[in-house]
Amino acid sequence: MTAMPFAPVPAFDPELRARVQQRIDSKTKPKGSLGRLEELALQLALVQGQEAPDPPVGQTLIFAGDHGAAKAGISAYPAEVTAQMVQNFLEGGAAINVLSRLFDLEFCVVDSGVATKLEPHPRLLDHKIAPGTRNYIEEPAMSLEQAQRAIERGAQTVLEQSIKPSVLVLGEMGIGNTSSASLLTHCITQKPLDACVGRGTGLCEQGLIRKRELLQQAMKRGQRPEDPMQVLCEYGGFEGAMMVGAMIQAASQRSLVLVDGFIVTASALIACELCPSVRPYLVFSHRSQEVGHQYALEYLSAEPLLDLSLALGEGSGAALAYPLIQAAAAFLREMASFESAGVSEKRDSGAST
Amino acid sequence: MTAMPFAPVPAFDPELRARVQQRIDSKTKPKGSLGRLEELALQLALVQGQEAPDPPVGQTLIFAGDHGAAKAGISAYPAEVTAQMVQNFLEGGAAINVLSRLFDLEFCVVDSGVATKLEPHPRLLDHKIAPGTRNYIEEPAMSLEQAQRAIERGAQTVLEQSIKPSVLVLGEMGIGNTSSASLLTHCITQKPLDACVGRGTGLCEQGLIRKRELLQQAMKRGQRPEDPMQVLCEYGGFEGAMMVGAMIQAASQRSLVLVDGFIVTASALIACELCPSVRPYLVFSHRSQEVGHQYALEYLSAEPLLDLSLALGEGSGAALAYPLIQAAAAFLREMASFESAGVSEKRDSGAST
Repeated sequence: MTAMPFAPVPAFDPELRARVQQRIDSKTKPKGSLGRLEELALQLALVQGQEAPDPPVGQTLIFAGDHGAAKAGISAYPAEVTAQMVQNFLEGGAAINVLSRLFDLEFCVVDSGVATKLEPHPRLLDHKIAPGTRNYIEEPAMSLEQAQRAIERGAQTVLEQSIKPSVLVLGEMGIGNTSSASLLTHCITQKPLDACVGRGTGLCEQGLIRKRELLQQAMKRGQRPEDPMQVLCEYGGFEGAMMVGAMIQAASQRSLVLVDGFIVTASALIACELCPSVRPYLVFSHRSQEVGHQYALEYLSAEPLLDLSLALGEGSGAALAYPLIQAAAAFLREMASFESAGVSEKRDSGAST
Repeated sequence: MTAMPFAPVPAFDPELRARVQQRIDSKTKPKGSLGRLEELALQLALVQGQEAPDPPVGQTLIFAGDHGAAKAGISAYPAEVTAQMVQNFLEGGAAINVLSRLFDLEFCVVDSGVATKLEPHPRLLDHKIAPGTRNYIEEPAMSLEQAQRAIERGAQTVLEQSIKPSVLVLGEMGIGNTSSASLLTHCITQKPLDACVGRGTGLCEQGLIRKRELLQQAMKRGQRPEDPMQVLCEYGGFEGAMMVGAMIQAASQRSLVLVDGFIVTASALIACELCPSVRPYLVFSHRSQEVGHQYALEYLSAEPLLDLSLALGEGSGAALAYPLIQAAAAFLREMASFESAGVSEKRDSGAST
């Protein structure tokens, strides 16, 4: 794989870790009683490299792209829906718009490779690599040059945001991209392909059988790819490749990345293979209904924050987890300590007196 | 049991249910893909009795009271901590203060029966029934008259809020009140007492054994109580009894109730026994670390929204779930429909063409 020109991702400071943990434990609550919020607060402080993390400034970035394989019938929706949903995002009517407005997240859509030509719009960034990937059932989805360009443009997108987001909410849109995520997950985790393939946005039983056959076919066509860039070229999407770059860039500038569901997690698999130091910058927002997600999560040793039976994509789960990040930052910044509040600490003896 | 003077709790309208479900299904997303958020949106609309629920107006109410049994050593913290933490709430330094500020929740503490005399404060309501309950290891915790008065004052507290909250975030403070919740859960659900008793705010193994012995002793003293009011009188707390009234009043005025962890759920057990029509107005915010919580939840057929390993109380879990209620209301109000956005719907055939 060709080296890519990324700024280095800073490692976490162990001395800071100890200080932040002490700060967490001094707060007026029994030790550990804020559970995962305490882990999040520690992670956020280490990501930012400071004892009291700044209040999060969040940015939603939706990467959209079409998949050549969609015309083979791997999805319950026709391929035109990618462009129609991008239009819906730009008009503010999708779930992710509602959630971004509610939680005060800046919102931007990136055309990574939508098949249709899209009209310019202030919230649309044109980084189209090509009008959709090639059909990976018949040939590799993209060339190495395209994959590299997509990763670089993904990074550039994060770098060029007018605000520097401290939390990046990553989402995607692309009819057929759960299939691509299944193939990526299969190649990286080595779990059986069928176990990685689910119903996407609502396939019936017959549709699922057909999808599995087609993806088996795709796997037979290519040689089993050996490295993550090859996996991406064989079966990836332009939106997925750009998210790889976005994650690496976010980590290198000390932003936390809120990973959405299965498709974004599949990009995280590639990002962490290419650049393992990205992993501590990722927060996995929710457990998707899509079956392959669990294997990708296991491979990354990730335990998602939410389990709300979501299966929508477009960053909706990541946006729903954003208030938990805000809460983690807020308690670490604002809560009183036992000392400052004059509250008695736990009795030594285990309290059986 | 003496009848209590509550306004009736409105039943949900089945015709409205059908209309709201149709509205949810018309939104630009695959059917059901917003998972539990869709259930929440339906519930909120039915609670409010309107197709598009108003944006939530949330109010945190923390009920605080002392337990006579605390001096027997059932908790890891000394009983003075109840009053100290109330002071911390009033000074704004506790976790629930931070979360209420972050999520724009009005905040109020109710002295239901704190042992210490508390100085007046604009955010403190004085509804003290008595300076702590009696020690239920030796005698009933409260008289029937006290229990009734506490329920009525809890209702009155909700009724008299200057804003009419559409979402009530219920929390509590009271050293020893996980023990009371364990006894209530045991009596109502009939699960074995030991299975209902956990470590509370951090008891060691020895402390847990001692706590179980003491609670066995308490159960042996009283006759096995036959009705929910008797259970409350034998083993309840003043804060718990007031929350029973708060829940019934909230439901009768069409407010949604966000139930926090184990202790608030134990009050929900009593409220639902006294007035089963309250149940559909309750949302269970999180699964507590405290072992007895699961039995209380099962008895109420409740699946909590969050599972973040919290064990703090004071409404922290309920406040953390509040943004999900906001999100549910927002998507139902604001998302575009397939028709209005010009997005193609799912293919009929299950998409294997």
